[in-house]
Amino acid sequence: MTKLDSFVAAQGDRMLDELKQLLRIPSVSTSPDHAGDCRRAAEWVADHLRALGCPSVELVASETHPVVVADGPRVPGKPTVLVYGHYDVQPPEPLELWDSPPYEPTIRNGNLYARGATDDKGQFFAVVKAFEAVMRSGKPPVNVRFLIEGQEESGSDILFGLLEKRPELVEADVAIVADTQYWAPGWPAIEVGLRGICYGEITVRTAKGDLHSGLYGGVAPNAHDTLVRILAKLKSSSGRINIPGLYEAVKRPAKVERDAWKKLPFNERRFMREEVGAKALTGLSRYSVFERLWGLPTFEIHGIVGGFTAHGAKTVIPAEATAKVSLRLVPNQRVKTVERLLKRAVKDLAPPYADVSVTFIHGADPVLVSIDHPAFGVIDEAFREVEGRGVVFTRSGGSIPVVPVLGKRGAAVMMAGLGLPDDRLHAPNEKLGVDQFLKGVRVFGRFLTALGR
Amino acid sequence: MTKLDSFVAAQGDRMLDELKQLLRIPSVSTSPDHAGDCRRAAEWVADHLRALGCPSVELVASETHPVVVADGPRVPGKPTVLVYGHYDVQPPEPLELWDSPPYEPTIRNGNLYARGATDDKGQFFAVVKAFEAVMRSGKPPVNVRFLIEGQEESGSDILFGLLEKRPELVEADVAIVADTQYWAPGWPAIEVGLRGICYGEITVRTAKGDLHSGLYGGVAPNAHDTLVRILAKLKSSSGRINIPGLYEAVKRPAKVERDAWKKLPFNERRFMREEVGAKALTGLSRYSVFERLWGLPTFEIHGIVGGFTAHGAKTVIPAEATAKVSLRLVPNQRVKTVERLLKRAVKDLAPPYADVSVTFIHGADPVLVSIDHPAFGVIDEAFREVEGRGVVFTRSGGSIPVVPVLGKRGAAVMMAGLGLPDDRLHAPNEKLGVDQFLKGVRVFGRFLTALGR
Repeated sequence: MTKLDSFVAAQGDRMLDELKQLLRIPSVSTSPDHAGDCRRAAEWVADHLRALGCPSVELVASETHPVVVADGPRVPGKPTVLVYGHYDVQPPEPLELWDSPPYEPTIRNGNLYARGATDDKGQFFAVVKAFEAVMRSGKPPVNVRFLIEGQEESGSDILFGLLEKRPELVEADVAIVADTQYWAPGWPAIEVGLRGICYGEITVRTAKGDLHSGLYGGVAPNAHDTLVRILAKLKSSSGRINIPGLYEAVKRPAKVERDAWKKLPFNERRFMREEVGAKALTGLSRYSVFERLWGLPTFEIHGIVGGFTAHGAKTVIPAEATAKVSLRLVPNQRVKTVERLLKRAVKDLAPPYADVSVTFIHGADPVLVSIDHPAFGVIDEAFREVEGRGVVFTRSGGSIPVVPVLGKRGAAVMMAGLGLPDDRLHAPNEKLGVDQFLKGVRVFGRFLTALGR
Repeated sequence: MTKLDSFVAAQGDRMLDELKQLLRIPSVSTSPDHAGDCRRAAEWVADHLRALGCPSVELVASETHPVVVADGPRVPGKPTVLVYGHYDVQPPEPLELWDSPPYEPTIRNGNLYARGATDDKGQFFAVVKAFEAVMRSGKPPVNVRFLIEGQEESGSDILFGLLEKRPELVEADVAIVADTQYWAPGWPAIEVGLRGICYGEITVRTAKGDLHSGLYGGVAPNAHDTLVRILAKLKSSSGRINIPGLYEAVKRPAKVERDAWKKLPFNERRFMREEVGAKALTGLSRYSVFERLWGLPTFEIHGIVGGFTAHGAKTVIPAEATAKVSLRLVPNQRVKTVERLLKRAVKDLAPPYADVSVTFIHGADPVLVSIDHPAFGVIDEAFREVEGRGVVFTRSGGSIPVVPVLGKRGAAVMMAGLGLPDDRLHAPNEKLGVDQFLKGVRVFGRFLTALGR
């Protein structure tokens, strides 16, 4: 047992108690009612980092949802590690589905239950505790900068604004994003890719107002009919997206990466039945499930607005219909390009009698992280020592908009999380394994120490 | 000038004053708040018919929305005329769009403005006043039965129930339905066809719950995607409905009827621009606008429920989607058959991974009236004398569910209305031309008299 491990073994309970203090603050960023709680959580984090010996701690960019920027002691000649995390949480509703109250952190069966336990308070706090562990000598092995935001669950606008004004804040060798998860228990994972997103609305207008289907049905254009026809053409039933040019930029994952995915423990039938809850998986079936999830763009309809949708029957011919749609983007696609291609495709599919428009709502570019940086070997070795198994390199089909920005000044972005797939983030009974948390402290402690060598 | 015309000329103002009394009662049947007003309107009509000399007047089938059944004096050996009408009205909202209050009948520029002026108080009251005119001798020329219901605007369930128990109530030679309109000013019309309707919901379920489009997009089936694909296949872009067997029963309007439609004054471009408010008319373009509106079935999407339809963006893959749809039916289609054909077509189009169901909501069979009965010649002559022009035979694309029932015991159903196309039924500033009302009394007076010969 190393000194680090002994320290964590001796101090683990105290660390968990500290984490519980932070978890008790209902720092929901999506509700203005909790603005004060978000501020309190930021202050708690700042005070904590100050107490650990950070000579510079700032709360910046917002009164209510400030970004905590804290630097550890300067260690000339050593690499700089940027630690990204967020102290805000998702709303806890529906409360009745929680087995213990969301803001009363409770340990049961080796798990710590609370809103934010895994997303993201527990995860970034493990890195904070690793920093504490390596600070014991007074002189840490590397330069560390914490960038802990309070608005990740509602768009990160404040952080984006801050980094536009002060891009030097992300100058670092490595950026740790401890906001992801293991592949499976015992299988630590580094996510090297995130899909991007292009979210918008397609609106079709076919008449000046809704019409009576008895009096005008048969000759009056129907906005829903027109929209449905456009949507059905935008994707084939086999799953191919019919937006000319969309696949041009798509960079297929390297064979070595795809081969690695084949070795991941995965039961497709169980995934389909239990996780997706469907009778079949859809999409481009000549590609593996992982490639469809991580390496290929998607086109989804999220909902259709317009006409009559209340209970019962109304015989209206809708004059306007809007589909909320999004595309997930993969390396090397760009939001701006995809937005343009979508608009052109919709325009080309629209019949001449319809006024059709596409409104862009939000977007994020995809991310593909190079794993050339030696830090990836270092974290692999740290996991191997603690977990008995090195990391697998996976991707995520989701999007974390801030990730590309963290790497903008050259930092190697390392998405190395401690969560498990059943941690129920965003859902009732969110949890973090106590063991996952403590292993995380040991892993990141090793990582910081080894990186200093 | 006949005696009838002199009587109407002399008594017209008094007749209008009586109609205004009825129009002042806010007998909205769709709102329980107005149940008492509906009862009051029924009693007013019953009292009025009693005062005119009907020996038998009943309020039956409901306390709050009774059907008024009134028989004129028995005239053995003479035909029986059934007069259908309804004393209930549509809600008047939005009130701020009325130039005079909806329940303060007001004459402006030769029009009587009030809720119910044309739909249907003013129209059936013109037949009542014609009955009064021909009753002056004490012995009317024909047997007359009034069947005035109070629930037409909310489904006619009470009348349907009554006629199921007492089908003999519709035993008559002719049934007058004065709840329609002229083709244009100066162009009296008899509607000989009504489309039927088959209204239902198509529901698609593809997973046990909504899924995150980042984590599952690319492999998880999307209920909206599946639904949209089914809907797009149910009708071709040219307007042909792809429900196998749907057109089999369709009886094309006779050439003589279609030729007559060609002679109706009609400006297609103005209809498209001003009435439909569209850049083009759609549907099966090799058929005329009238044939598409009156002689061909339709398939319309009214709205799509499910997924995310609130403001903003949510990246959900919907597990369930429901389309509210309806078909308008034409002679000789039947609701029950079309319901079965729709269900089978949807089932055949559904992919194996989706659970798809079709729920029937309501329906009405189409109506095609034979104009062989001599009464049609009689009404044509009556209009010719009063209006200087005989009737044109048109159809309506809408549905009046009670009409088929009125003809069930052999009565020739005669949909002969007094309204004009711009009467704004169901809308603010509903009106009936004073002249149309008085001409109506003269026309129906002539009709009753001539039918007795």
